[in-house]
Amino acid sequence: MRTAAALIIGNELLSGKIAEQNLVVLARTLRPMGILLRRVVMILDEIDVIAKEVKELSATHDVVFTSGGVGPTHDDLTIEGVAQAFGVGVTIARELDDLLRGYYAERITEGHLLMARVPEGARLVSSGTIQWPTVVMRNVWVLPGVPEIFKLKMPLVREDLGSDTPFVSMAVFTDLDEGHIKELLDRTVAAHPSVEIGSYPKWNDPDYKTKLTFDGTSGDHVRAARDAFAAGLPAANVLKIE
Amino acid sequence: MRTAAALIIGNELLSGKIAEQNLVVLARTLRPMGILLRRVVMILDEIDVIAKEVKELSATHDVVFTSGGVGPTHDDLTIEGVAQAFGVGVTIARELDDLLRGYYAERITEGHLLMARVPEGARLVSSGTIQWPTVVMRNVWVLPGVPEIFKLKMPLVREDLGSDTPFVSMAVFTDLDEGHIKELLDRTVAAHPSVEIGSYPKWNDPDYKTKLTFDGTSGDHVRAARDAFAAGLPAANVLKIE
Repeated sequence: MRTAAALIIGNELLSGKIAEQNLVVLARTLRPMGILLRRVVMILDEIDVIAKEVKELSATHDVVFTSGGVGPTHDDLTIEGVAQAFGVGVTIARELDDLLRGYYAERITEGHLLMARVPEGARLVSSGTIQWPTVVMRNVWVLPGVPEIFKLKMPLVREDLGSDTPFVSMAVFTDLDEGHIKELLDRTVAAHPSVEIGSYPKWNDPDYKTKLTFDGTSGDHVRAARDAFAAGLPAANVLKIE
Repeated sequence: MRTAAALIIGNELLSGKIAEQNLVVLARTLRPMGILLRRVVMILDEIDVIAKEVKELSATHDVVFTSGGVGPTHDDLTIEGVAQAFGVGVTIARELDDLLRGYYAERITEGHLLMARVPEGARLVSSGTIQWPTVVMRNVWVLPGVPEIFKLKMPLVREDLGSDTPFVSMAVFTDLDEGHIKELLDRTVAAHPSVEIGSYPKWNDPDYKTKLTFDGTSGDHVRAARDAFAAGLPAANVLKIE
């Protein structure tokens, strides 16, 4: 199973000016692809920190996604940070330079052309439906922070990376609280080691008290764990099985 | 200026089952307190990873907040992780034990009583308005992941930690794009080193193209940077100053 990490970059997120929106989009893209998102790090616009994190995450995960810090201004440091992480320089990608000159025509500035910078050795990934190419350096995808554009990149991620065995996810809803189901839950966890079991209390919800989730790459194993748990509850306390 | 980090724990966030909601609440609490949130790490329910992160974040920041992984089930590992980070054991806090027994009365189970566990040496912070005490181990606040309860803890954080010089934040909105303002922006950044200047393009917004933010702990410095930038723009391109 491939693993992934995300590096989310931007002072505006850590100061609370803007609520982060891209993580859940990425998580929901990777999950059906069977790629396990293991770690997310959110940092300020600081080039040395970006470089250090990219280096670490890239070495310890199959694929890394950065979000934010791309653009032409002083606080856009991701391209340089990624280059620094891999000990390479920054160069101008001819393909991006041409696209920028075509788009801005006579209104183009030196500022705009900075958006053609890429780490040396990066590849540009594009598809028919997405006009602007995406910079990928080794196993690091450099994605924009603007949520509308980040979302547009997800089909490209799916297409380029392909899918592993997808995760299967099932659930049981009960009106018992966690304290009351703990014993049964512990037994189910012990008996089904290949299934990841989660317990989520809902606060002040009239519909249920606890949601139990059962996840894994084997549908049979997941179903067996879910059914064993549900069968262990008093029937009257099983509100929903899915 | 004090620094802070957050450790957000939970498989359900990294799998995309649930969208993370607590970070922005914490960020918006700390900002007016003048505490700089520098780093957020989001991880799975894995005790060794929790312990390692708590140890690192606690050593490198003035205050750390964990979110999630508290409760009685097998996937609630934060208390043990924090204890492991500081090389101490887990003990039962008499005050929490009493509260649990009072609340659940004859319905109480061994499972419920697990919620009285704290790292050895932790203190319990409470106030008149918030009934359930919060566990604080050294500089690490152990907060619940449930958003409704996480929010309720913020007044306690404010009260207990007190405030430093608050950040002042100002902004200029323009209909020019980042490429067109880059030169002026670079000059402003260079001339106002004590002010943190951010540039945020808005995609497909009819109201403006770029928002420039000016932040710092000196209102005079922030205002000077903002006014210098606004004065450098053609008047027709200044849409709003705040």
